Amino acid sequence: MSRAPAALSVDDVTALIDESFPQIHAGGRALYIESVADRQARVRLTFSDRLARPGGTISGPAMFTLADFSIYAALIATLGAPAIPAVTTNLNITFLRRPEPRDLVAVTTIIRLGRRLAYAQVELTSDGEEDVVAHATGSYALPAVGSGT
Amino acid sequence: MSRAPAALSVDDVTALIDESFPQIHAGGRALYIESVADRQARVRLTFSDRLARPGGTISGPAMFTLADFSIYAALIATLGAPAIPAVTTNLNITFLRRPEPRDLVAVTTIIRLGRRLAYAQVELTSDGEEDVVAHATGSYALPAVGSGT
Amino acid sequence: MSRAPAALSVDDVTALIDESFPQIHAGGRALYIESVADRQARVRLTFSDRLARPGGTISGPAMFTLADFSIYAALIATLGAPAIPAVTTNLNITFLRRPEPRDLVAVTTIIRLGRRLAYAQVELTSDGEEDVVAHATGSYALPAVGSGT
Amino acid sequence: MSRAPAALSVDDVTALIDESFPQIHAGGRALYIESVADRQARVRLTFSDRLARPGGTISGPAMFTLADFSIYAALIATLGAPAIPAVTTNLNITFLRRPEPRDLVAVTTIIRLGRRLAYAQVELTSDGEEDVVAHATGSYALPAVGSGT
Repeated sequence: MSRAPAALSVDDVTALIDESFPQIHAGGRALYIESVADRQARVRLTFSDRLARPGGTISGPAMFTLADFSIYAALIATLGAPAIPAVTTNLNITFLRRPEPRDLVAVTTIIRLGRRLAYAQVELTSDGEEDVVAHATGSYALPAVGSGT
Repeated sequence: MSRAPAALSVDDVTALIDESFPQIHAGGRALYIESVADRQARVRLTFSDRLARPGGTISGPAMFTLADFSIYAALIATLGAPAIPAVTTNLNITFLRRPEPRDLVAVTTIIRLGRRLAYAQVELTSDGEEDVVAHATGSYALPAVGSGT
Repeated sequence: MSRAPAALSVDDVTALIDESFPQIHAGGRALYIESVADRQARVRLTFSDRLARPGGTISGPAMFTLADFSIYAALIATLGAPAIPAVTTNLNITFLRRPEPRDLVAVTTIIRLGRRLAYAQVELTSDGEEDVVAHATGSYALPAVGSGT
Repeated sequence: MSRAPAALSVDDVTALIDESFPQIHAGGRALYIESVADRQARVRLTFSDRLARPGGTISGPAMFTLADFSIYAALIATLGAPAIPAVTTNLNITFLRRPEPRDLVAVTTIIRLGRRLAYAQVELTSDGEEDVVAHATGSYALPAVGSGT
């Protein structure tokens, strides 16, 4: 899997998304892009009581949001600003273990980057742990950006 | 498909979920159970700027939350309080059209209700429209409640 | 859901698919289109030892084949010969019960029929039974046939 | 990801599956387990006209069968004979490119191996190529074999 540098830096990707989707951080910023590479991104969801569920675990919608956001970050990092209009067409998430009440980390790998469609997978782990707590795959419709085949 | 009455009324299901998951309504109540029947539920997500995205559409995570919640409501309506500990094990959502900036309605049908596992499908439409804007299927692990096979 | 007549009859759909994909019936015909309507198809998989698995059940790949074929039949019935080049882009199948060793029936409903993409769901039951043994959703890329939006 | 040796060798896994599911090879053997490791398997589907589709590509059901079989092989390699009764509960496959008319290779990684449930992902490539032609995830119900958590 490629480890070539991304087209954009973490700061650039963060700034682009913040500017385009300020609503994502309504209620306080919880999603932080930690690193990007070509077709890859690593994103942290910081734990807070807002995301907690009884038994000290994390809500499913919060994990969905993290998975979806991390794929989007990998697309922007790889394709740059032209990918901002990309939209999710499918997201399939399987919850494998109850995460502990701490930060979650999502590692996204784009498996297929075509001209009009991208497909990626995401592994979610609790910060500092190896066990995958949730696994997602996502498909995205891309605007015509002239990259890929 | 069964149209037998649910075990619980809309008010009972709403009260049970509110009591067990007060965090769901953090930031203001947006999810309203409109009707329930045996293995079925209809839930409304009221539109607000918080859920909007550029172009006047609704965020993917908000649609995921609605789909997940509506399946959960159908489970509680059908099985009652013993189903409160049910957890989502998989949710697969396909986004078919950009919804307009108005309320969304989710109609859930439970397709399989076993002793330990339930499986359901959900159709999401914009209020007053027929076209499905998103379709989801979900699997849930049930606590041992002695109903179904 | 629409019950308008399909563009083509059962015999027309069967003849078109047989002509385009003779390989489907290699080893003997097992798939029979029973009825079609606008955006709908009902297809039977006849049971034989070839499809059996230990315990007297039916193989997963046979159920996948039935689900995929029935969506394809609904597309051809609705769009006619121009849809022959349609290709499956995703198929998600959940196995809910072990089917008995008898014919399986698939009922497909196309939920979204756009210009370039179709999305459908399929319920598989054992012949004469009501319980769903498997449920699938599928996405298909359509050639430009000028139908739908 | 673990590269520890599997519990069983390629020959042992092949013999166990052949003995339990002789029907898999009806019509001639096309599936060959090439290597196994702890929670991993690599399986080849040899190309033949039987699997071909117009345009010189490979049928979707053949790719489903390969994905499903390769996960099953990884389970048997890791858990041994007690896993023989494992059954597929869900398989989600996304077709990313049309494969060329040559052998396909599936590489499976088991992401979660619990006591009662396993979850895996599979990448399918054309022999000798890097591009993924299809990607699948699968869930399997395990008999109680006392391994994992």
